[in-house]
Amino acid sequence: MKSRGHPSAATPAGSITDVPGLHVGHYQRTGRGWQTGTTAVIVPAGAVPGVDVRGGGPGTRETDALAPQNLVDQVHGVCLSGGSAYGLATADGVMAWLEERNLGFPIGSGSDQVGVVPVVPAAVIFDLGRGGQFANRPGAEFGRRAAKAARKTQSHWGSVGAGTGAKAGGLQGGVGTASTIVTIPGEDGQPDLDVTVGALAVVNANGSTIDPLTGLPWERRCFQLRRPSSTERQSLVEVLDGQATPRLNTTIGIVATSAQLTKAEVSKLASVAHDGLARAVRPAHSMFDGDTVFGLATGTHLMTSESTTLRVPGSRNGALNQLLTASADTFATACTHAVLAATTIGDLTAYRDVCPSASRD
Amino acid sequence: MKSRGHPSAATPAGSITDVPGLHVGHYQRTGRGWQTGTTAVIVPAGAVPGVDVRGGGPGTRETDALAPQNLVDQVHGVCLSGGSAYGLATADGVMAWLEERNLGFPIGSGSDQVGVVPVVPAAVIFDLGRGGQFANRPGAEFGRRAAKAARKTQSHWGSVGAGTGAKAGGLQGGVGTASTIVTIPGEDGQPDLDVTVGALAVVNANGSTIDPLTGLPWERRCFQLRRPSSTERQSLVEVLDGQATPRLNTTIGIVATSAQLTKAEVSKLASVAHDGLARAVRPAHSMFDGDTVFGLATGTHLMTSESTTLRVPGSRNGALNQLLTASADTFATACTHAVLAATTIGDLTAYRDVCPSASRD
Repeated sequence: MKSRGHPSAATPAGSITDVPGLHVGHYQRTGRGWQTGTTAVIVPAGAVPGVDVRGGGPGTRETDALAPQNLVDQVHGVCLSGGSAYGLATADGVMAWLEERNLGFPIGSGSDQVGVVPVVPAAVIFDLGRGGQFANRPGAEFGRRAAKAARKTQSHWGSVGAGTGAKAGGLQGGVGTASTIVTIPGEDGQPDLDVTVGALAVVNANGSTIDPLTGLPWERRCFQLRRPSSTERQSLVEVLDGQATPRLNTTIGIVATSAQLTKAEVSKLASVAHDGLARAVRPAHSMFDGDTVFGLATGTHLMTSESTTLRVPGSRNGALNQLLTASADTFATACTHAVLAATTIGDLTAYRDVCPSASRD
Repeated sequence: MKSRGHPSAATPAGSITDVPGLHVGHYQRTGRGWQTGTTAVIVPAGAVPGVDVRGGGPGTRETDALAPQNLVDQVHGVCLSGGSAYGLATADGVMAWLEERNLGFPIGSGSDQVGVVPVVPAAVIFDLGRGGQFANRPGAEFGRRAAKAARKTQSHWGSVGAGTGAKAGGLQGGVGTASTIVTIPGEDGQPDLDVTVGALAVVNANGSTIDPLTGLPWERRCFQLRRPSSTERQSLVEVLDGQATPRLNTTIGIVATSAQLTKAEVSKLASVAHDGLARAVRPAHSMFDGDTVFGLATGTHLMTSESTTLRVPGSRNGALNQLLTASADTFATACTHAVLAATTIGDLTAYRDVCPSASRD
């Protein structure tokens, strides 16, 4: 398993868009009482969805449709947003954008098709009032603009989109990403199969991604970081200790793979991504966190010419286990990247400004 | 929050039996084709139960009765065992032992009570054949003997009871324990409340508790360990790499607290203990792991004279969050302790024998 390391905090070499077919777009507003935004992941060719909700205070939409026993087995977009429960309205805008492109669950078939209903799973973080005005929150237009901005080569991370108003353990939070290539051994003369696992995390956590003892992230193996100076570590501890009583906080995200998986398998993939969250954010899954991870499986592969499925029944669970391990590791890296890539907005200070020597490129 | 550190690997200062009312007993057989056993946790005064099953291949009993919406709100014992699904028979012996003491769900009331039905939640690990004979597995008698051996001052840990045939990432696994004292701030002039959280883990994991890069446990903050020599680290990597293809593996355990909690809260406590598992054992929750954690809340306290509940509604979730954080941390420490306390049996080598300088007392 090769992790695509981040050569620096600001320019990740691995991204959820390394999973072919996934596009990411952000839209946000800051200043004049605003500090919030929306991130949309668009999959024009569709993906098999899954979800695991493990926080005590979630804000979600269309999660029941993703249960393995339920009907919908393809989605074309996922919406992550600030705005707490109000921000669930952003999915309306993603739905409208998808409907205009005839992407969604088809109503009627063939020449009798009368339209589509796009199923857009969504989850939100609590950032109400971070920009100064409690009533400034994302609506449908934010979702539409985030969908419209979606690109395969997304290069904006950190304090953008749904991460604009995010806060993580007293520091500025953000949106992070990472990807891993998993090589699944071929059997019966078949060639090895390279499968991509990508993750996107919006970190607005009650817990911290930074170990106060070292001043470095709990999960830092994919990053080249220097140990912060003692002065920097002291400043960091003051920031971490100084955060207000935790209220409503959340890490939300997506783990995606190019493998062809069933809905139940994608649910398991989303579930084990929470292990990465547990390692990267401490504590996690509190009563005040709405921690939610969506899964997406596109069923295509990055680097194979012929095989498009995990086909060998005897080793299918073994191959799935490799993807589960990558799911946890990649989601952990995405969580850490979110905080490393964040930039200071207003009175929320970013890690890179508290510990500049650690995150210097 | 104070963690009761382990001054050495072999003699933990913190134990699940620090939660008043909990007794732990082990029974095991080794040699002549045997290497398996059973661990019983007995709570004569009863405890509110919960459970979270997060592995892909669990072996459990009486978990449905623990769902918050279901009837049973007190259990008097939990049974953990080797023997894979066959080992679920050990709960029969714990039931019989409890029935003889009239401990269980009462049938009829007052003078019309005709008897009890003890509800004994159980989970098993896969250790079939580790002693040489596939057919040598624990039955009801193992459960009865483990219950009979239960003591408040349990001092046997490591390769005993349900951990006798356990294997963790190629090393000998075992049973580990830990405890934490959580101080919940008093409100409205009430005194602070000291609540104990204890954990017991049987580590038979597909993943490893040891970081191959350092040769030390992933979660080691509660232990005084030296860095192993380069020769030891080399031996360790060979052991970790040399393990056979993972088959059926599992970490099972219990997180217990002296706080008075509802069934739903105890379920959440068990759920967040899996975060500790995710940090201590990497990877965890695979399709071949039957990872299961039970929760128990006794409703008594270690060090308070008057308060027996988390009473203040406004801060109840805040107090619960403190317990959830302790649940993850304490369960992680118990998992690590299981491997540090393990001793070599047969051809399964213990960490202390591969890296003796790390775990020297």
